[in-house]
Amino acid sequence: DIETAIKLSFICLQCLFGYETNVMLVINNKGVGALFRLIQFLIIAYVAVYVCWVQRAYQDTDSVISSVSTKVKGNILTNSSAAGVHVWDVPEYVIPPQGENTFFVLTNVIPTLGQRQSKCPEVRWNTSICFCESDSDCKEGYSEVHGNGVQTGRCVQYSDTIKTCEVQAWCPLENDTVIPKPALLGAAEDFTVLIKNNVQYPKFKFRKRNILHHINSTYLKNCTFDRKTDPHCPIFRLGDMVTEAGEDFSVMALKGGIIGIFIDWNCDLDFPERFCIPKYSFSRLDNKNPENNVAPGYNFRFAKYYKTNESTETRTLIKAFGIRFDVIVFGMAGKFNIVPTIVNLGATLSFLSLVTAVCDWVMLTCMKDRDLYAKHKFIHLNQNGDSVPLVS
Amino acid sequence: DIETAIKLSFICLQCLFGYETNVMLVINNKGVGALFRLIQFLIIAYVAVYVCWVQRAYQDTDSVISSVSTKVKGNILTNSSAAGVHVWDVPEYVIPPQGENTFFVLTNVIPTLGQRQSKCPEVRWNTSICFCESDSDCKEGYSEVHGNGVQTGRCVQYSDTIKTCEVQAWCPLENDTVIPKPALLGAAEDFTVLIKNNVQYPKFKFRKRNILHHINSTYLKNCTFDRKTDPHCPIFRLGDMVTEAGEDFSVMALKGGIIGIFIDWNCDLDFPERFCIPKYSFSRLDNKNPENNVAPGYNFRFAKYYKTNESTETRTLIKAFGIRFDVIVFGMAGKFNIVPTIVNLGATLSFLSLVTAVCDWVMLTCMKDRDLYAKHKFIHLNQNGDSVPLVS
Amino acid sequence: DIETAIKLSFICLQCLFGYETNVMLVINNKGVGALFRLIQFLIIAYVAVYVCWVQRAYQDTDSVISSVSTKVKGNILTNSSAAGVHVWDVPEYVIPPQGENTFFVLTNVIPTLGQRQSKCPEVRWNTSICFCESDSDCKEGYSEVHGNGVQTGRCVQYSDTIKTCEVQAWCPLENDTVIPKPALLGAAEDFTVLIKNNVQYPKFKFRKRNILHHINSTYLKNCTFDRKTDPHCPIFRLGDMVTEAGEDFSVMALKGGIIGIFIDWNCDLDFPERFCIPKYSFSRLDNKNPENNVAPGYNFRFAKYYKTNESTETRTLIKAFGIRFDVIVFGMAGKFNIVPTIVNLGATLSFLSLVTAVCDWVMLTCMKDRDLYAKHKFIHLNQNGDSVPLVS
Repeated sequence: DIETAIKLSFICLQCLFGYETNVMLVINNKGVGALFRLIQFLIIAYVAVYVCWVQRAYQDTDSVISSVSTKVKGNILTNSSAAGVHVWDVPEYVIPPQGENTFFVLTNVIPTLGQRQSKCPEVRWNTSICFCESDSDCKEGYSEVHGNGVQTGRCVQYSDTIKTCEVQAWCPLENDTVIPKPALLGAAEDFTVLIKNNVQYPKFKFRKRNILHHINSTYLKNCTFDRKTDPHCPIFRLGDMVTEAGEDFSVMALKGGIIGIFIDWNCDLDFPERFCIPKYSFSRLDNKNPENNVAPGYNFRFAKYYKTNESTETRTLIKAFGIRFDVIVFGMAGKFNIVPTIVNLGATLSFLSLVTAVCDWVMLTCMKDRDLYAKHKFIHLNQNGDSVPLVS
Repeated sequence: DIETAIKLSFICLQCLFGYETNVMLVINNKGVGALFRLIQFLIIAYVAVYVCWVQRAYQDTDSVISSVSTKVKGNILTNSSAAGVHVWDVPEYVIPPQGENTFFVLTNVIPTLGQRQSKCPEVRWNTSICFCESDSDCKEGYSEVHGNGVQTGRCVQYSDTIKTCEVQAWCPLENDTVIPKPALLGAAEDFTVLIKNNVQYPKFKFRKRNILHHINSTYLKNCTFDRKTDPHCPIFRLGDMVTEAGEDFSVMALKGGIIGIFIDWNCDLDFPERFCIPKYSFSRLDNKNPENNVAPGYNFRFAKYYKTNESTETRTLIKAFGIRFDVIVFGMAGKFNIVPTIVNLGATLSFLSLVTAVCDWVMLTCMKDRDLYAKHKFIHLNQNGDSVPLVS
Repeated sequence: DIETAIKLSFICLQCLFGYETNVMLVINNKGVGALFRLIQFLIIAYVAVYVCWVQRAYQDTDSVISSVSTKVKGNILTNSSAAGVHVWDVPEYVIPPQGENTFFVLTNVIPTLGQRQSKCPEVRWNTSICFCESDSDCKEGYSEVHGNGVQTGRCVQYSDTIKTCEVQAWCPLENDTVIPKPALLGAAEDFTVLIKNNVQYPKFKFRKRNILHHINSTYLKNCTFDRKTDPHCPIFRLGDMVTEAGEDFSVMALKGGIIGIFIDWNCDLDFPERFCIPKYSFSRLDNKNPENNVAPGYNFRFAKYYKTNESTETRTLIKAFGIRFDVIVFGMAGKFNIVPTIVNLGATLSFLSLVTAVCDWVMLTCMKDRDLYAKHKFIHLNQNGDSVPLVS
């Protein structure tokens, strides 16, 4: 009937606007009170100092997107008995001429001139297993993994005393047993490289480059990066980078290696843009661990092809040792965002409810008035509907 | 006055050290009690098993930074009617000679020898629309997108029966309609590649390389990667990688393709460093979907330039088909950190307060003693200041 | 004894199955009740709308792994007084012939023909400090940073009026003071590039490529990307990309530059796979800021080496200006996961407990019946064990 409906609506409204709040027991025990306030303080201090200040957990983050271009400068004059006087300039020693995030500087060279497709005895310096006594020791069409060509099946005189299998290959074969020492282009440590780096954090629509606003052309033309005096100059001396990586350039130049140029763009974008500056560091990326030094250093072979007449192609094979510089850009930007803030605050807040649990446990087990406290904290309801204390 | 001030200070102190705790109603109802404990147990079990163990949500994470270098080994002898006997070695079939995270192995070749700048009739194999009947069909200076050069405006005899527009181009033009089959360098599947990979997690100051500590030089000289017998050998046979990617090398060698070499460095750095080892996997990255196979496979053109005399430059154009291997290094490292731990524990803890809400609802609606429970749980305060139960 | 043991077990069981619930005070104050419901509503609305809908905080995320290959098409005819009629095709103007995530298109050229190792006077166009009056002004073996070679120590006649230090270098030296204007290959804006991009999200085992399922071969052969009419065509006209980046192709072609091709693969993987489509955008990555325009634009030098006879090597040095296109693939995929859902919901839930704190404060300080409320909310326990109200 209507009366019940009205009554129900009334109850419902009461429900909606009636405010429920916990009934609290207040005890004047200084010990538990102090413990309670102390833990509360610790949690709030942790949130304020560690989460907010140190870890910046109130920030949304984004990873850096980067674009790098490099330009090496310098010339070297070498004077070897074989090749005579030769000046090396950038197009000759930077291979390939343009790299994306990486550039390679030649420091040592084993050239093999005038190679052409023909047959010649396999050389003995690469492997100890290429000797032969008769044609039956050689296998036509067989290509050894560490060999220089494909065997023709004949066993031929390599020197007066030694016979080796003949191979079809680019002859004459390379002899890379003796590495020039000191390195042919050891003076490359004086070369400089200009590194231009543009970064962006797409989530925050933030863009910046490593040539900072206050750097002018005059300064850029003459500066060289120095951690103390010129920390923002984007021009680096190769020798300085290798030294900072803890290596000796003249040693590294012999067999080559890989140097990482790390550009750290970690930024707090809640601060003004001018505080977001790159930090450079350098370290060697390949391992010079002597225990398992398979293919130590860094080298590769390439060839320059010539035709002196229409039909025959010859080439100069170059085994190039050198230092590969990998420009590795990394970083995270953070900016205030409501979601991580609420998640982190909320999660820590919920620990405040644990405090009550801890203090209750202390109050109900360690205090001398524990029975009194329990009697007032707990209202026990037995099956008869009477409320009685558990421990009387 | 002073008395009030003292009284106020006293109240304030009482406030600070007085401990407030909830007054609880304890009911001896096994159903609700069991439900309460069950839900509590489920939540705690979820936190322990899933969040902590499976998802490792107590860890801070960092993305991998990687440096890769590769070295291919192997020789092939080809004997074609056009080019004769030819041995291909690494500097010839790996293009460019050094890549950063990628290396390309030539498997098939369409060479066009002796090209020089001149005029010749456009070839009919590329497009069906290059026929002409008179000069008026050709447009001087027009360069067709799929054509080989720039039209001179003349219509010339291409063969006895066909006339095409004349183009200024590197002549003779390339004929790439017939792809050598089987692939010229199909034997490239026996080549091996050594992949050196250095990784670091800068946040955790962790560095490692894929040549593990226990691998010595002797092993490295002879091993080949095998998922079962040699899972840590960093030397891969090209054919094995293509097979693992679910492809047939001899088919893929015809038109080329892209194979991804995935190195997974996902690591739990709470464990000792030796458990952090790379996992290799391989898959084809380009699509061999026959529905929209525009530019199927992978190929590019490059040229070798010659000068047989001072003035004229000729070139050999090479359409290079081959397999590009992309070394893709990925991974996340996790390490215990207090912030994600607290966030995850805290967030889950707050669900424990939901348990009470659920059990209260059960208690107050489904139990036969619900009125009795409600009477003791709720103290109703009406406007007169008397506390009365809602349902009497 | 046994009786105590039984009693203790009983208490323990009671503990386990006894259900504890807060005793609540219900007050019929419409103000506080409305405030309470309003804040609760706001928090729940925030969770529903912002956290779940806008920020998709219920999702686990993964970063994109990408593989890119590119293919440029187009021919240009140039007619310069020095080099005569010349047609440029892809192998000539795309350097290197294959890039990984990047490709470079030549737009302007300063060639220096017939260089060979010899001695010549340093040129005056590079630096103003290379003049000399006598041999004592030149230093044998000295290599100036911005110079072209290594000084021999002699001061020689450069022109009728000027003397400069002689250098050992690749002579004749390059003269790069006058950049061809308009750019030699300015017509490169009509070239097109096909970009094939495969992405995967390894955590979700999701793979896709930018050539979508519904694109067929016929369409692909003729389409060009257009933001309005063809937003899914993976073939881009160079000029269109430069225009979208807000630059003028003919100006940029003069000195070169870097254009970023951004492919955004942000995807909500809770939706069907077909909704995950790439979004393209373009912007200039290098800076054309005139304040510190050191090495403006983008250029590099490379050389083609020739041997016209067995002994002498000559080369053509090419200073190549052009546009480097960096294909930058980025994106995050999200998919429902229970852990972030619980963390985010849980953290927000714990704010609901704050609501009570706020409403309690309002109730106990702002309401006219505050003393009455406090009397019923708080049960004060003094040292004598009697419960008395604080404020009587």
